[in-house]
Amino acid sequence: MTKFSQEIEVSGHLIDSSILTKIFDKIMDLHGEFQVEEINIGKKKKDPSYARLLVTGKNQKHLDEILETIHREGAVSKIQKGILLKKSPKDMVMPDDFYSTTNNHTQVFHNEKWIQVENMMMDKCIVIKDNRAFCVPIRDVKKGDEIIVGEGGIKITPPERPREGVNVFEFMGSSSSSERPTQHIAKKVAEDIYKTKKSEGKIIIVGGPAIVHTGAADAVADLIKLGFIDGVLAGNALAVHDIEYATLGTSLGMNVHDATLAYRGHRNHMETINAVFRAGSIANMVKTKKLTRGIMYQCVKNKIPFVLAGSIRDDGPLPDVITDVAEAQREYKKMLKDANMVIMISTMLHSIATGNMLPANVKVIVVDINQPTVTKLMDRGTWQALGIVTDVGAFLPMVVQQIKKQKR
Amino acid sequence: MTKFSQEIEVSGHLIDSSILTKIFDKIMDLHGEFQVEEINIGKKKKDPSYARLLVTGKNQKHLDEILETIHREGAVSKIQKGILLKKSPKDMVMPDDFYSTTNNHTQVFHNEKWIQVENMMMDKCIVIKDNRAFCVPIRDVKKGDEIIVGEGGIKITPPERPREGVNVFEFMGSSSSSERPTQHIAKKVAEDIYKTKKSEGKIIIVGGPAIVHTGAADAVADLIKLGFIDGVLAGNALAVHDIEYATLGTSLGMNVHDATLAYRGHRNHMETINAVFRAGSIANMVKTKKLTRGIMYQCVKNKIPFVLAGSIRDDGPLPDVITDVAEAQREYKKMLKDANMVIMISTMLHSIATGNMLPANVKVIVVDINQPTVTKLMDRGTWQALGIVTDVGAFLPMVVQQIKKQKR
Amino acid sequence: MTKFSQEIEVSGHLIDSSILTKIFDKIMDLHGEFQVEEINIGKKKKDPSYARLLVTGKNQKHLDEILETIHREGAVSKIQKGILLKKSPKDMVMPDDFYSTTNNHTQVFHNEKWIQVENMMMDKCIVIKDNRAFCVPIRDVKKGDEIIVGEGGIKITPPERPREGVNVFEFMGSSSSSERPTQHIAKKVAEDIYKTKKSEGKIIIVGGPAIVHTGAADAVADLIKLGFIDGVLAGNALAVHDIEYATLGTSLGMNVHDATLAYRGHRNHMETINAVFRAGSIANMVKTKKLTRGIMYQCVKNKIPFVLAGSIRDDGPLPDVITDVAEAQREYKKMLKDANMVIMISTMLHSIATGNMLPANVKVIVVDINQPTVTKLMDRGTWQALGIVTDVGAFLPMVVQQIKKQKR
Amino acid sequence: MTKFSQEIEVSGHLIDSSILTKIFDKIMDLHGEFQVEEINIGKKKKDPSYARLLVTGKNQKHLDEILETIHREGAVSKIQKGILLKKSPKDMVMPDDFYSTTNNHTQVFHNEKWIQVENMMMDKCIVIKDNRAFCVPIRDVKKGDEIIVGEGGIKITPPERPREGVNVFEFMGSSSSSERPTQHIAKKVAEDIYKTKKSEGKIIIVGGPAIVHTGAADAVADLIKLGFIDGVLAGNALAVHDIEYATLGTSLGMNVHDATLAYRGHRNHMETINAVFRAGSIANMVKTKKLTRGIMYQCVKNKIPFVLAGSIRDDGPLPDVITDVAEAQREYKKMLKDANMVIMISTMLHSIATGNMLPANVKVIVVDINQPTVTKLMDRGTWQALGIVTDVGAFLPMVVQQIKKQKR
Repeated sequence: MTKFSQEIEVSGHLIDSSILTKIFDKIMDLHGEFQVEEINIGKKKKDPSYARLLVTGKNQKHLDEILETIHREGAVSKIQKGILLKKSPKDMVMPDDFYSTTNNHTQVFHNEKWIQVENMMMDKCIVIKDNRAFCVPIRDVKKGDEIIVGEGGIKITPPERPREGVNVFEFMGSSSSSERPTQHIAKKVAEDIYKTKKSEGKIIIVGGPAIVHTGAADAVADLIKLGFIDGVLAGNALAVHDIEYATLGTSLGMNVHDATLAYRGHRNHMETINAVFRAGSIANMVKTKKLTRGIMYQCVKNKIPFVLAGSIRDDGPLPDVITDVAEAQREYKKMLKDANMVIMISTMLHSIATGNMLPANVKVIVVDINQPTVTKLMDRGTWQALGIVTDVGAFLPMVVQQIKKQKR
Repeated sequence: MTKFSQEIEVSGHLIDSSILTKIFDKIMDLHGEFQVEEINIGKKKKDPSYARLLVTGKNQKHLDEILETIHREGAVSKIQKGILLKKSPKDMVMPDDFYSTTNNHTQVFHNEKWIQVENMMMDKCIVIKDNRAFCVPIRDVKKGDEIIVGEGGIKITPPERPREGVNVFEFMGSSSSSERPTQHIAKKVAEDIYKTKKSEGKIIIVGGPAIVHTGAADAVADLIKLGFIDGVLAGNALAVHDIEYATLGTSLGMNVHDATLAYRGHRNHMETINAVFRAGSIANMVKTKKLTRGIMYQCVKNKIPFVLAGSIRDDGPLPDVITDVAEAQREYKKMLKDANMVIMISTMLHSIATGNMLPANVKVIVVDINQPTVTKLMDRGTWQALGIVTDVGAFLPMVVQQIKKQKR
Repeated sequence: MTKFSQEIEVSGHLIDSSILTKIFDKIMDLHGEFQVEEINIGKKKKDPSYARLLVTGKNQKHLDEILETIHREGAVSKIQKGILLKKSPKDMVMPDDFYSTTNNHTQVFHNEKWIQVENMMMDKCIVIKDNRAFCVPIRDVKKGDEIIVGEGGIKITPPERPREGVNVFEFMGSSSSSERPTQHIAKKVAEDIYKTKKSEGKIIIVGGPAIVHTGAADAVADLIKLGFIDGVLAGNALAVHDIEYATLGTSLGMNVHDATLAYRGHRNHMETINAVFRAGSIANMVKTKKLTRGIMYQCVKNKIPFVLAGSIRDDGPLPDVITDVAEAQREYKKMLKDANMVIMISTMLHSIATGNMLPANVKVIVVDINQPTVTKLMDRGTWQALGIVTDVGAFLPMVVQQIKKQKR
Repeated sequence: MTKFSQEIEVSGHLIDSSILTKIFDKIMDLHGEFQVEEINIGKKKKDPSYARLLVTGKNQKHLDEILETIHREGAVSKIQKGILLKKSPKDMVMPDDFYSTTNNHTQVFHNEKWIQVENMMMDKCIVIKDNRAFCVPIRDVKKGDEIIVGEGGIKITPPERPREGVNVFEFMGSSSSSERPTQHIAKKVAEDIYKTKKSEGKIIIVGGPAIVHTGAADAVADLIKLGFIDGVLAGNALAVHDIEYATLGTSLGMNVHDATLAYRGHRNHMETINAVFRAGSIANMVKTKKLTRGIMYQCVKNKIPFVLAGSIRDDGPLPDVITDVAEAQREYKKMLKDANMVIMISTMLHSIATGNMLPANVKVIVVDINQPTVTKLMDRGTWQALGIVTDVGAFLPMVVQQIKKQKR
């Protein structure tokens, strides 16, 4: 086994700049092994630390992969090899396997000496000339330039984190991004839901009315019908819009199937509220066959509990809505007890409310088109949340399609 | 063909307020026909215009559809029919086909007279009692109330567009924008507040907790102290954060004066809630000198009423919070009665709630750093709002500085 | 008083396209006076209307101000003066007081005839040559060109608003919104593309790299392969990311199919750029079978022209990129000539650039997850754009799926 | 000294879940001292680690502060004290100094045993009953409930980070927030600029045209005039808008001082471009006294170099603009050499371009009202950036005001 192992060293503020954390991370991400052979943590806060690890891969290629990856985080092989150089084949072309730079302070081991790379920038190559090393953009590469290839002989020093004292640079938290492959994420979320359910997990949906506006109500109703959802937490608006859509085909007067405005559609919102009041409750509407489809219908029919919390902006609100928020909180908490996964869709109000009630180990997925909504939830302490910035009307149907594939 | 035609009249600033445009639009959208039988455009800009159209539908139902639609834009049938009334079948239930209100000035033709609907709001019904007409929310409908059904006998007057003279309300384009000269807008808003107050206008603030996080609490407290504000509508969070800041100097544990985290600051939020519970109420905290500054303090001291509406995400909530949202809505409405100007700051929930309660002629200013928040409010019908996309923490102190200059 | 008055005429769909509204507005904004001397509203909806107004200013300068302003809204002086011309003093310099264009259909009165301005774009000047009128950008002005100065002799025809029939371009309200039924909108956009192509229309795509990050590259490549696209306008990043994805399966080092980070993936971006430099061009990569799929491949294979405009943030940039932006603008304009539909996807830079080059009657669809991007484009004058706030990675695959259904 | 020290222990995945990092951080943030007395890092990745530290404060109060803070991160005092309990004085009131919960797994040391707190949620108190511990919200507290006070006897277990294998929960990066005290941040940025300059640092501004639209051009011009800026990197638009504002008082035709539209203001943008072409260059406009104020003027007058990079969306572009982007990149890089601080204002294009050219140790401040702009820059590798989500038009004048105060 020894032949696929190598010793590496790393020094600096290993712990407080998270350097060791990142190196351990990378090794594990690549399914490698490591042993801590020696570690000296600076006894006082200004002392640098030192660690020596034995890194092991499944084979030489695997080990090389791991080593090259952790080199970028500051690890240095105990037996230092020099850099390899190759000539540029023509102007503005780099040799195969050229070393692509980071923007960190970088040294290269050349002629038995460490030399510092000048003019450091990211995504460039390194040219060696007269025992000096230069960071060079592709358009400035000249035929014959000596360019570093591979990852050997390179030492990167990650920047120390700024420390102590009030610093305006400390305001960084965690976030989410809209620049991810959406179809893949939909598949992953589908898998997560599927697996959680298969292992008898409890899944709760927290949803806002944009589910209906964006045409995703059928997807959510399907999820409930298929047995993946154990409870729905929402407000008055989701229920009203869902029932308007289920009974009249519109959402706030707009025909959801073709986005035209319905004749007298402005009435439909209030018409719906009136219909529920006339029936006495949503369950009664289902019993009397006035409500035969949609999210609320599937809840009633499949005996999936729901809690509708009142808010100051409610129209109506429906008789099913708990208008006292202290009481509504109690019901929310009951529903969330022992939940394994909570999916929050397009509602900042109910998402933050729910986030406050959850222990940190519950999986939370937040889906919203508005990035600040997702950020705010995380800022308020629900930092375990996975934020997905996407269009609910396009994303949820994808998730349901994927779940149906899993089922087969 | 004549039997499916009807003459309608419309008068007012038909052209410069786009009333005729909208009526023509609606007829064409519904595939109806029209002939302009008479049109008198005011010769000078202050003269009202008059038009008489013959509107034709494919059949009676089609014609009725068209007529009802254009009634909402201000058209009035030449031969005026009275309103139809139907009794409410039970408490909180409106009869079928009830007329659902807009937020425009509305008159109804009853007993051969036009009477003006009182307390106008959108998405409500109209109750007739003792020859008076009232706009009534569903929860306040009593069994036996006489409620208008259908669209006959109703005359709507769309608001005139404001004209001439530099007015902060003229910045409205297709939407709100962050690309405007901020200092100038702050000055204009300051002037607007100053003038509204000078002419004895009623100004209400609707605010969220970001006022405190962004360091604008002192500015708002100043506005109240200086006598510009007649009421504060908010939720639990604004009050809790304001009192945390006033008593402990922090907002969610962060020292507002230097953005550092306070020692044991995580407790301060709950510590504050406990302090109010111990005192029994915010007013008692002021009375016992536990609370000596800030927004809530200035309200209590200057006898400016406030309403705190509960929400599902509240911590506590404070004893002053109205946890029943239906009750809170009633108190919000009382506060908003006869308001001339409403300033909504960093709170989508309370802003939309308030927007729904306001007639279209009340000046509304919405300040938020998040453009979609501003857009959503307008999309929901509060189209008269002036949206200002800015950083509340920088903008409000500017406004207050400008108002103080005006005062001198 | 008469000497500071002038009669103007205006005709067309004065009321339903709000032309008269805008003219009245402008006069009042400038504190002018007007009298309606004659008005004929088309008796039926297809009949054009005509109005003659007497416009009065405080003095000649004031009157001129008013007249020039309302000329831009379609008003024409009764006694028509010809245009005034002045020679350009040197290359790339326009004479003082040159007329600056709108993007509306424009005619000029020259040698007692109305001639139509060719190649209409906004913010340019008009050059007269051989009794023809050309809209010319400043960089193309040659010394001695005859350029229109002042506002006399110019007639603008504001676009008629599109009317009747369900059209995806009717969704426009005060702005764009994320609260629309996404699946339906995808279907409508698909229909629009399909119909435009069926009637031999020219469709141009303007795209940014998020197409690749979000996993929508296959959808765009499909659209090209299926023959719906007549040209691609982009920058360096789209091409680099597309080729990285096509050759290495990653986008900035992230495997697009499962969102994991590729081993040594950080190199892939620069590796891709180097590969294109080595081949000499994208077309050469296709010829030598190094590039066998993706957006750029489909362009080359199907002989669909593309223009890649350089920008200051480019890595590389690729040899195919036009690094001189003035030259790139010329190529963009050539591509856009006679386009019937332009689809802008996730790129503010290229979308605004393209928007500036388009006449107001070209259909424009803007797709972006970030609402301010969409708003900014409209604010900059491309008000005819349909803004769709959605997740490109979910939306484009839906559109392509719908188009394939249409095809069958 | 020993009496103000205490030994603490911590165990678990200390390094890969960053627990040790956070404990070191907190001690240093509070200006405490520590010595690592013993550390055992798990030799293999599944082995837990253990550390024993000696923590030292300046006095007992200081030490207690530190201990209580690190308890929340999982540290446990070697000599374990039991919890302290106090009775609730009345319903819905907690005793002073009650322990306020986190949402992490929590145990309490009571009657010589560790018991686990049930129903864990954040921001609640803990009630002990029948040797069980419950997390209880304030409204459910009953008079006489035994509630934990102080921080002793409590052990928190921070959650392990999820590890290994593709997990959709890994997408979290760094970000910025709009919920910070703006005035304080303005002061900090001012201090940072002031200190950097005082120590002869090089400060570069990267700016977009929104500086002018939002009325912040005077602030930036002031900064240059006062000698704080060593170079300006921008595009065509900033220069054109600045000169339009400096010469005509408008920005895209809008009067910046009062936000009204200027008469014939639509021409001003092109008029400005023409004026620069006529003069031949910006420097010539200054020389011939056509340009006497603003950002570009101050650059020329104070010999502060600027580089204007062309882009595909430029009008003109001005003769000073480098239209070849490869050349512009070279000039940008020259300007950025040895910069100590780069302030990026309202321009995604130039900010990302500049970010790519900077080594990781340069201070970067990004100011934009649009959060995704800030996030994108960080996502692209400029992770050292401080993102400030604010309104440039309000923020920059504040910064300049603060700098002027520093100067005195």
